Amino acid sequence: MNVLLIGANGQIGKHLVDLLDKSNEHTVRAMVRKEEQAEELKKKGIDAVLANLEGGADTIVKAARGCDAVIFAAGSGGSTGYDKTLLIDLDGAVKTFEAAEKAGVERYVMVSAFQANNREKWHEKIKPYYVAKHYADKMLEESNLNYTIVRPGGLLNEPGTGKIAASENLERGSIPREDVARTVMESLTEENTYKRSFDLMSGDTSIAEALKNV
Amino acid sequence: MNVLLIGANGQIGKHLVDLLDKSNEHTVRAMVRKEEQAEELKKKGIDAVLANLEGGADTIVKAARGCDAVIFAAGSGGSTGYDKTLLIDLDGAVKTFEAAEKAGVERYVMVSAFQANNREKWHEKIKPYYVAKHYADKMLEESNLNYTIVRPGGLLNEPGTGKIAASENLERGSIPREDVARTVMESLTEENTYKRSFDLMSGDTSIAEALKNV
Repeated sequence: MNVLLIGANGQIGKHLVDLLDKSNEHTVRAMVRKEEQAEELKKKGIDAVLANLEGGADTIVKAARGCDAVIFAAGSGGSTGYDKTLLIDLDGAVKTFEAAEKAGVERYVMVSAFQANNREKWHEKIKPYYVAKHYADKMLEESNLNYTIVRPGGLLNEPGTGKIAASENLERGSIPREDVARTVMESLTEENTYKRSFDLMSGDTSIAEALKNV
Repeated sequence: MNVLLIGANGQIGKHLVDLLDKSNEHTVRAMVRKEEQAEELKKKGIDAVLANLEGGADTIVKAARGCDAVIFAAGSGGSTGYDKTLLIDLDGAVKTFEAAEKAGVERYVMVSAFQANNREKWHEKIKPYYVAKHYADKMLEESNLNYTIVRPGGLLNEPGTGKIAASENLERGSIPREDVARTVMESLTEENTYKRSFDLMSGDTSIAEALKNV
């Protein structure tokens, strides 16, 4: 698959660039916001496109054209205000759904957050963030895209183990970002994850097997 | 109709309390956030219930039980942060859709905002507010409720004229809050507004006639 990766400069995004680039099955088009990020990627031989989730949807449509799948690994991050949460994590995400549909891309994998689907479990401190992720996921489920929504637990920077737990309802846990990236990539072509949403933690099953039984 | 009015202490809400209370067709149950607001309403003989849009949906279900319609005239207001925009204008609104469905209330009238449906027209300065209103409206349209979404232009405090323009796409204009309240009330039983969304400005047609031709 030729994959448009949105949020290629993020922490999970960087793992995904590497994994997709090394993969024999996929090619990656890395979407980033800043010229210098694009230049850096191009130096490594990566196809990079400039587009801003706060900008017009047209640039994203153009970026998605010719791709077979979109991965959303972007986020406004913890250091910006809730204006950016609304503009990027919610409206920016929905723009990419619309862009994928307009560009004729059917497959879409969203990196969401553990408990984004359960209002009762939202931590008081970052409740507004969950609101944005929740409704972005809802809009994706209502779209015509062939989506997969992955909801990882606490994100770690340690190296991945390749062993996960993936299921509709898991207990709170954590997982290395590298394993999130691998799971997202392997989901692209795993039909059992089509039109599905699931929690993701470290576990003791190989990614391929876990996704077959999600 | 017995109407649950959400945001009864707001500027449009106060007009609606008066209008519904004086009407021969309707009775009003005013939902407010603060004890003193409820007391003040009760002193005037108005049925008032306490519930917080940031709280659990259960209290709202209880408030809606026995009602025939819900009007949403609440808002986080211009003086709070965008955390409240996410929690009240978006998630709080969606809680009331869920509550109406759970309580068996079918009719729902939403006070939205002019251009909430047109991303390209969102003013830079309050874009995040539009995002919240946009997705609240989208979720209402996706719900099973018999909704009407009213999108008034610039809100004025001058007395109403009873003359409006109501249509799916109007040019920017303004309208007294009193006329918004009257239009919302008259929409409740006007079948031509069922499952419809429209812009609302001051105009030269009576409210009843404008709603028949929306």
